[in-house]
Amino acid sequence: MGKSITHKIIEKHLVSGEMIPGREVGLRIDQTLTQDATGTMAWLQFEAINIGKVRTDLSVSYVDHNTLQMGFRNPDDHRYLRTVAARSGAVFSPAGTGICHQLHLENFAKPGATLIGSDSHTPTAGGIGSMAMGAGGLSVALAMAGEPYFIPMPKVVKVHLTGALTGWAQGKDVILHLLGLLTVKGGVGKVFEYGGPGVASLSVPDRATITNMGAELGATTSIFPADARTREFLEKMGRGSDFTELSADADAAYDEIIEIDLGALEPLVAQPHMPDRVCRVSELAGKAIDQVAIGSCTNSSYSDLKNTAQILAGRRIPPSTDLLISPGSKQVMKLLAREGLIEPLLDAGARVLECTCGPCIGMGGSPVSAGVSVRTFNRNFEGRSGTQDGQVYLASAQTAARLALDGKFTDPATWGDAPERVELPAEVPSIRDLFVFPPAGDDAESVEILRGPNIVALEEFDALPAAIETTVALKVGDNITTDHILPAGAEITALRSNIPAISQYIFSRVDKEFVSRIKGLGGGIIVGGENYGQGSSREHAALGPRHLGVRAVIVKSLARIHRANLVNFGILPLLLVEPGDYDRLEQDASLTIPAAGIKPGNTVAIRLANGESVAVTNDLTKKELEIIQSGGLLNAVRNNQS
Amino acid sequence: MGKSITHKIIEKHLVSGEMIPGREVGLRIDQTLTQDATGTMAWLQFEAINIGKVRTDLSVSYVDHNTLQMGFRNPDDHRYLRTVAARSGAVFSPAGTGICHQLHLENFAKPGATLIGSDSHTPTAGGIGSMAMGAGGLSVALAMAGEPYFIPMPKVVKVHLTGALTGWAQGKDVILHLLGLLTVKGGVGKVFEYGGPGVASLSVPDRATITNMGAELGATTSIFPADARTREFLEKMGRGSDFTELSADADAAYDEIIEIDLGALEPLVAQPHMPDRVCRVSELAGKAIDQVAIGSCTNSSYSDLKNTAQILAGRRIPPSTDLLISPGSKQVMKLLAREGLIEPLLDAGARVLECTCGPCIGMGGSPVSAGVSVRTFNRNFEGRSGTQDGQVYLASAQTAARLALDGKFTDPATWGDAPERVELPAEVPSIRDLFVFPPAGDDAESVEILRGPNIVALEEFDALPAAIETTVALKVGDNITTDHILPAGAEITALRSNIPAISQYIFSRVDKEFVSRIKGLGGGIIVGGENYGQGSSREHAALGPRHLGVRAVIVKSLARIHRANLVNFGILPLLLVEPGDYDRLEQDASLTIPAAGIKPGNTVAIRLANGESVAVTNDLTKKELEIIQSGGLLNAVRNNQS
Repeated sequence: MGKSITHKIIEKHLVSGEMIPGREVGLRIDQTLTQDATGTMAWLQFEAINIGKVRTDLSVSYVDHNTLQMGFRNPDDHRYLRTVAARSGAVFSPAGTGICHQLHLENFAKPGATLIGSDSHTPTAGGIGSMAMGAGGLSVALAMAGEPYFIPMPKVVKVHLTGALTGWAQGKDVILHLLGLLTVKGGVGKVFEYGGPGVASLSVPDRATITNMGAELGATTSIFPADARTREFLEKMGRGSDFTELSADADAAYDEIIEIDLGALEPLVAQPHMPDRVCRVSELAGKAIDQVAIGSCTNSSYSDLKNTAQILAGRRIPPSTDLLISPGSKQVMKLLAREGLIEPLLDAGARVLECTCGPCIGMGGSPVSAGVSVRTFNRNFEGRSGTQDGQVYLASAQTAARLALDGKFTDPATWGDAPERVELPAEVPSIRDLFVFPPAGDDAESVEILRGPNIVALEEFDALPAAIETTVALKVGDNITTDHILPAGAEITALRSNIPAISQYIFSRVDKEFVSRIKGLGGGIIVGGENYGQGSSREHAALGPRHLGVRAVIVKSLARIHRANLVNFGILPLLLVEPGDYDRLEQDASLTIPAAGIKPGNTVAIRLANGESVAVTNDLTKKELEIIQSGGLLNAVRNNQS
Repeated sequence: MGKSITHKIIEKHLVSGEMIPGREVGLRIDQTLTQDATGTMAWLQFEAINIGKVRTDLSVSYVDHNTLQMGFRNPDDHRYLRTVAARSGAVFSPAGTGICHQLHLENFAKPGATLIGSDSHTPTAGGIGSMAMGAGGLSVALAMAGEPYFIPMPKVVKVHLTGALTGWAQGKDVILHLLGLLTVKGGVGKVFEYGGPGVASLSVPDRATITNMGAELGATTSIFPADARTREFLEKMGRGSDFTELSADADAAYDEIIEIDLGALEPLVAQPHMPDRVCRVSELAGKAIDQVAIGSCTNSSYSDLKNTAQILAGRRIPPSTDLLISPGSKQVMKLLAREGLIEPLLDAGARVLECTCGPCIGMGGSPVSAGVSVRTFNRNFEGRSGTQDGQVYLASAQTAARLALDGKFTDPATWGDAPERVELPAEVPSIRDLFVFPPAGDDAESVEILRGPNIVALEEFDALPAAIETTVALKVGDNITTDHILPAGAEITALRSNIPAISQYIFSRVDKEFVSRIKGLGGGIIVGGENYGQGSSREHAALGPRHLGVRAVIVKSLARIHRANLVNFGILPLLLVEPGDYDRLEQDASLTIPAAGIKPGNTVAIRLANGESVAVTNDLTKKELEIIQSGGLLNAVRNNQS
């Protein structure tokens, strides 16, 4: 039986586990990327592992999410990222150089290589055959330290493409079609692998748009073969030597096959507030549009913007519609400049913003109240635009540009001839000199890592003692979310590089006295009810309590991701054997946890000060328990590496 | 005796008063400009005057200060400004078109015309011989309504220029030299009028830099003659017909004469934290530079940025120095694009930002903690950059670009040959189509003014009753500032288009119960001590109390600008005849003010509920008292116009 591309790459990078869907596999990671929003914590964690230089083939630290530099914290973060990269052997991409995924595709991604990035749209590099996955910051830090990346072995879905796109249809319409078909939950646990005779008709930017937005299917990743078009793309990027041909065997087995006739696609749009609420553009004809935004890691390539310029050339968007354009990289900007394509954008009335994520992550560009905004981005969740009642629609760059001229949704049948499909010119300018490459060899050791007052190194956590003499520092009820544990909001988020500072907000919306109380106690535990820790994946909701001296939580049940974060940062997640015992654990009660006696799945007795005891169990694996005993995953890794 | 340019223009526009220094003169205003930060309130005030269309020759509403659009309030403000301009016969300049002063110079300013703008750097237009002054929002609203603008008749200082700039010295160095000589208080009550044989050697952008930053001298304004270079500039802008020759008579009288030999100037820099802390660049040689920012209304012209590109071409700034460039207008951007000057900027590592004020007003681009930032801007006040301990230096664009390459201050003697002085090319592209011109005639009446939920029309205030039966709603001590009355900060400032909402914060840092108490009382008065209302000029510190029903303040003494704002919004500023009576006016005391009996400078008795009385006086002019009696300046104007 032949192999899929996915199986070939996983097999080649397999460090542990069996390739049976659902079973955990450990993969060797060739490349990593981080961006600034998640990057400072990932790099602080990498520093805490204390192994000196990155052990990947390549690690790149991009600044693209928050580049506004409003106040000292943001530029201090950027300076930290620049200097820690130089010291650690990583490449640094300064603010304004471009969007991480577009830059990585143009400059670094390789067919057949594994890549993880602390950003969910890392699969963009799948457009040239890289197996590229989004991951949490600590996973990326560990991959930089040479540790494997663990995932459940995915199922592989073949998306069999036939025909070729016609008229105004674009790569974006392929993925919007799939989203309409499968919904945002349709890809969980799966890799979408593209194949069939239609592949050759798709340009690399179209492919990258498709794999990028495979993230919205919930997929592990998406991947295209590396073929003649891939080779041509890499050659034009000055990276012909990075090319390796990559294709599935003719008789490869797949868990599922989906067929798409590219020739049957027409311009589509995802309606508010979910990327899978897809309809034909023509169905919305007549609806007024307040804003159009072109850019983001999904659609900010040279071809997207050249098409945009061709559509806008010689015309003027109506004053009642704002048009924002964020090129994906300085290479894209240079190509536009060289071909005289900036003036047509300006003359049409467009605002040409810096080469960053910009409005896609709510860094400006919010629509007016209840405003209709057509965006080439990948997500249209309610409120994500920064305007709670904004109505965001997702479309291709060509569709967006055409609609901007009309100032309202119109039927593509009225649009006339589509612009020619854009190919890269023979000569593509390099922006390689704009990356900051790390100094060679020993020179890196003389680099001083510069931290602002808001950047605080991760503390070293101590190992779990044999017995924990402690106090119930807080008792909470059912369904406590990570927002209860650590609220979001601009004020608190600005402290993400500073665990001691951000810890002052732990449980601040639940109990204003909590922080001063647990400090007075010199640490403590939390008692909770069902579904403790539901919500976001923020690591700070475990890091903060750990900083304050929380060594265990005793609850009725736990949410999955927060449980993993508790393990990673060395907090015991204990489960009440008798849910009714919840009533016997009062706030301020003193107790002793026999930590040395805890084994995977066993039951131990917690002794209360009054002589009674409460039975607790756990669902920890042996590996997880070892992590907690060593004080957290970073300690465990350090122990293994020393 | 001959006349200065200043006297010629004032004489031609004189509506009232005598041209004797210090005496109030009323001037007819030909043009106005507003920007978004002050513009929404100015336009709400203009709407409240209710005269339909602007009565100036030209009024332009620019959006350049806050263009980030983080959340709905900012884009809603922009939409309001666009629609109220269309309805009112004003020109609208959308976000990203450019910086108001650069755009006004290129597109609208006229020699010999009067211009007031709700921005302190309006004197930029003095570079082509416009008498251009910064003013408060209500003054601009009144000028738009055809009312005169009142100023104390200024003294006129002739700045007699000889020689010509050499080497790296630029227009910026002329004004930095003057600031070093005269200090930031040296220009109060004066117009700086440039003349002498050196004028002909200065380009229009150099002249505009000089008049722009005359604001830092505290001057009323600064002005250059309109000569052959002015004519050439206007012709290249497609506005040859706007040219009028303008020069001082050979025997003009001046109050003061300052001589500057342009040939003797060298690159200068203003040190932290004041524009008059000027030294030679060479004196700072060796000091490391974290950031360089080129742009702002002072130095963002085509010549500034072409010089910058020439200096940077083929070189790379060190990674430890960030370089931010904000072109002054889309015309500048188009010229750079047309001449292939964008690529050299990108290749050098510069971040090319949108055509807005940007970092100059703290909208991003803050330096790192304690960072050294060299900026081509006009102000380097402590904390203005957004980084409280940032060390900001002011210099010309050429100096800034050269220092960026070195990553530290260096001696200009080591810089080699200066780039050639830049002249505009023969063909300058127009961006006239990017302005939104108002519909002609009756069509304007069909324009709907669009307000977001945060934009609330100014209420109409009622006239002063004959007797005010009221209560002391708050009693405060000495030296109450406008920050006490209405705090600053992002949360509150975002409500500047919404008086009812912002009024909820009146005295919030002094007495949290104040707002609910005065609402319960249905209005009241404030009792204060010495120097009541010191600090900023914010109109909201009078508008908010008036909204809450404050009809009078009774104090020992008043700060000048707040007193004027109280008058403008119809609040009686009463002074205790006996300061000791302060102790007899307790919070919650009921009293009656015999408002009908108040005459300029007279004394009236306020009757307390216990039968006693307190004597108060005033220092109001007849005109001021009439304004208060009609309920505020807007009512007074409406009464006069009906």
